[in-house]
Amino acid sequence: MSLSSIVRHCYFRHHLTFPELQTRCQRRISSVWSTAATQSKSMKKITTPKRDILMPSVQWFISYLVGRHLHATQLHLQEVMLTSERYDVQRLPFATVSDADLSFFEHLMPDRVVTASDELKSFNVDWLKSMRGCSKVLLKPRTTGEVSEILRYCSERNLAVNPQGGNTGLVGGSVPVFDEIILSTALMNQVISFDSISGILVCQAGCILENLNQYLEELDFIMPLDLGAKGSCHIGGNVATNAGGLRLLRYGSLRGTVLGLEVVLADGTILNCLTSLRKDNTGYDLKQLFIGSEGTLGIITAVSVLCPRKPKSVNLAFLGCSGFSQVLKTFTTCKGMLGEILSAYEFMDNECMQLVERHLNLTNPVAESPFYVLIETSGSNSAHDEEKLSHFLEHVMASNLVIEGTLASEDKKIKALWALRERITEALTCDGCVYKYDICLPVERIYDLVTEMRTRLGKGAKNVVGYGHLGDGNLHLNITTESYSQSLLDAIEPYVYEWTSKYRGSISAEHGLGFKKKHYIHYSKPEKAVFLMQQFKSMLDPKGILNPYKTLPAKVI
Amino acid sequence: MSLSSIVRHCYFRHHLTFPELQTRCQRRISSVWSTAATQSKSMKKITTPKRDILMPSVQWFISYLVGRHLHATQLHLQEVMLTSERYDVQRLPFATVSDADLSFFEHLMPDRVVTASDELKSFNVDWLKSMRGCSKVLLKPRTTGEVSEILRYCSERNLAVNPQGGNTGLVGGSVPVFDEIILSTALMNQVISFDSISGILVCQAGCILENLNQYLEELDFIMPLDLGAKGSCHIGGNVATNAGGLRLLRYGSLRGTVLGLEVVLADGTILNCLTSLRKDNTGYDLKQLFIGSEGTLGIITAVSVLCPRKPKSVNLAFLGCSGFSQVLKTFTTCKGMLGEILSAYEFMDNECMQLVERHLNLTNPVAESPFYVLIETSGSNSAHDEEKLSHFLEHVMASNLVIEGTLASEDKKIKALWALRERITEALTCDGCVYKYDICLPVERIYDLVTEMRTRLGKGAKNVVGYGHLGDGNLHLNITTESYSQSLLDAIEPYVYEWTSKYRGSISAEHGLGFKKKHYIHYSKPEKAVFLMQQFKSMLDPKGILNPYKTLPAKVI
Repeated sequence: MSLSSIVRHCYFRHHLTFPELQTRCQRRISSVWSTAATQSKSMKKITTPKRDILMPSVQWFISYLVGRHLHATQLHLQEVMLTSERYDVQRLPFATVSDADLSFFEHLMPDRVVTASDELKSFNVDWLKSMRGCSKVLLKPRTTGEVSEILRYCSERNLAVNPQGGNTGLVGGSVPVFDEIILSTALMNQVISFDSISGILVCQAGCILENLNQYLEELDFIMPLDLGAKGSCHIGGNVATNAGGLRLLRYGSLRGTVLGLEVVLADGTILNCLTSLRKDNTGYDLKQLFIGSEGTLGIITAVSVLCPRKPKSVNLAFLGCSGFSQVLKTFTTCKGMLGEILSAYEFMDNECMQLVERHLNLTNPVAESPFYVLIETSGSNSAHDEEKLSHFLEHVMASNLVIEGTLASEDKKIKALWALRERITEALTCDGCVYKYDICLPVERIYDLVTEMRTRLGKGAKNVVGYGHLGDGNLHLNITTESYSQSLLDAIEPYVYEWTSKYRGSISAEHGLGFKKKHYIHYSKPEKAVFLMQQFKSMLDPKGILNPYKTLPAKVI
Repeated sequence: MSLSSIVRHCYFRHHLTFPELQTRCQRRISSVWSTAATQSKSMKKITTPKRDILMPSVQWFISYLVGRHLHATQLHLQEVMLTSERYDVQRLPFATVSDADLSFFEHLMPDRVVTASDELKSFNVDWLKSMRGCSKVLLKPRTTGEVSEILRYCSERNLAVNPQGGNTGLVGGSVPVFDEIILSTALMNQVISFDSISGILVCQAGCILENLNQYLEELDFIMPLDLGAKGSCHIGGNVATNAGGLRLLRYGSLRGTVLGLEVVLADGTILNCLTSLRKDNTGYDLKQLFIGSEGTLGIITAVSVLCPRKPKSVNLAFLGCSGFSQVLKTFTTCKGMLGEILSAYEFMDNECMQLVERHLNLTNPVAESPFYVLIETSGSNSAHDEEKLSHFLEHVMASNLVIEGTLASEDKKIKALWALRERITEALTCDGCVYKYDICLPVERIYDLVTEMRTRLGKGAKNVVGYGHLGDGNLHLNITTESYSQSLLDAIEPYVYEWTSKYRGSISAEHGLGFKKKHYIHYSKPEKAVFLMQQFKSMLDPKGILNPYKTLPAKVI
């Protein structure tokens, strides 16, 4: 999402009207079904929260330090503390960039070697303004050949390289820790081919996700992934971090939809696995190792992606539930009755609703309930989809799984309902200092952690809230206080990681490990797996020049 | 598919009646729509072709040698030529099994160490009866711990090990080449857990696919993959070979649906990545390397799989098209109009139809056409699905994309229509010596290869036919002659591989490389990728004891 669209979003508010679905389908919906949302409300400008930038639909794990930064109103890039000063990290013995090196790069890519410190600033600081490197060089290759030449040279010279896409990462994986050379894929932004029969797109790594989606929509297709950061993030970065996002429930992960990759290895070798085939069982599937490796094993230069058809019909239901067991039962019912058209199943607790009401002046479209769920359908026939949704709603109302709900099938209304869920992060930042955790758990355990934390922290916390992608087992646990409290943090960590580990959950559902989380890997991966990862790293990047200090803890020798 | 069901299948023939769909939906279907299939036909016993066993719905690549074997009527296991005699292959310097080794295994697994030569026979010979090893020992572990102990011991003793699931592989990957110890997963057949909220199944590797599907169907779920060999193949083997099958178009590949694996490495290390999470970005996704590695990197002992809900409604359309461009246009139309309910799109040419009519006495349910397509829908609402299908058929008839068609929504009729497509392999074996190729190509190129081969071979071939999973870009090219001809083979190979390589296709779409295809890997993978695969093999199995002589060509030193 670009900055301009964020600003628009902050001023955006829509009337919630009772859906036409009920009328169109001519079906009885339980009399307890809310009509509160039918009342016309005047448009009201919502004050944009005071901060530099904010991306409401992206969730992240950040330390309390980052939480504080989000409240800084006039933060400038130069004020971000250097990573090397904030964290206990030692520079590895890489070479430093010399004049001769700059001459080589300038000769290779005239006018695409950036050394001016003003221009470099924004590439050295992460999106959350929580990390700052001190790189002196930014390279902007256009071709895979150039990337190969750069890495071959850097490998020989023992120069460290920080690959960077849209720099929207949330765990400090996309910016240098020290003076690593920044290799940006920004100019590698060409679509190579699209096959409208198979729906297979081949493009360079630096294509911006939203641009690809727009390109495809004109051809009646969509990208299989969607993220809040879509206006800036690069497809290469998405693949390198195995991005999840909003469409995973429907179209699956990138591990299934990415069909081929072109990757440049640390020594400059170009590994061409850029096939556009749905089936290929000729040897090991090497590309999988690079998906989610966060630029530590190679630099992705091009991708081949299987794209679904653009859905002709989208509907959204916003429902209130009396308890979490009802949320779960509604989910299983919905999977059965909506089947192939279900495209999102999100949940939020009432504490979240109170925050968006209080801090953002959003209106709860249904009666107050302990939990709310947001169900999206996407299909090829609007009448069929609405009828399925209507049947489903009748059933869950009659079974008392749902207290009250509202529906939307028009784009504006859909966005207004989505805002209740997507803007929780924004509301949280207005509530004080935020301690954020992005956890994946077996779905039946997903809310137990919130309940336990509430009991454990008692009055020490201002709010303990839970929301997330229930359909994916992805919980966003957030805890707020008026101001930073070390004793509260000690009560949260490592308890939250231990609890997650106990139930075999993931301490990073979709954001990767980057710089900030690499030391927590043991909570989700056994020692032997980590050791094997380190072996892969050593094999593919023996000098460790690719995105150093990231993803894996240093080997214990 | 078990032998008994194959026999039933061979005697099975159903009346093809005009579908009730037309009536139920009360929609006009073009007047040219066939009513030929409405004529009642008497049940007629079809003679089972004379051969030992045949699995009609499985496609395979086999050399002419195998083709000949399929015509042997009284072939016994002991008559299969030893692989070491048939092929130019040298035994590697592994140790041979000693009495002390047998004592160790017997102590570890009393009564589950098989050394009787009669019992060993069927484990030494592959399903196609084209390869025979001479292993003297079969081990049947029940637990992961036992597998670990076996491999730790074998690694220390330098004993080679051949992992074996259901032994349904088609490229010689599942049987020993020399005297490798056979490690069967047959007794590792327990379901560990199933979560009916998330649909995640966790089970041991030796569970038979069909048993898992039956288990799930009772719980209103299905396995995300389906194969002709489902009655015998093990889920561990499916994952180890990255099996494709009939549901791939709808539910994607195992790379997306397998969520976790437990693997025992060559040195006995147990690698536990058996998580049941839809999202987990904590480090590299190690399990992917083992999916499709054909037992050469580790032995899969347990899997975690995401299972879809059982569809409530299944429909099948069998259509005639006047050309291959109409087949392609019908496919794109169908993806747009059937959208989320499309679950299979298969095609066959008229030459295939003539073979199933001539050799199996099956009846073409529509007017003779140059091409036929078989479209399956699976959804959650039969009325909606049938209406979508009806709209689609009206459209393709009105657009002259389809000449004539017939529909089925009842199980028996669906099976009868599927038989026309599934029994092509069987019909081909009745036509003479068969040269079979299983190719994946960009979908727009899929039939060009058949046309080119027809021109190239001229009267040298009896029949050149093409059929396959068009939705997956998977072509089954088959060429028949009255008897084996070396000159014909020379005209086919390496031309067919070179052609496939030229269009960046895969020379093994879904069957892997095993023993028979490992030397062809260069047609689909660049040298650098093969080298990297060999590095992974050396790292994970430095002594090369796991499934030797398979998947990768030997390193050029």
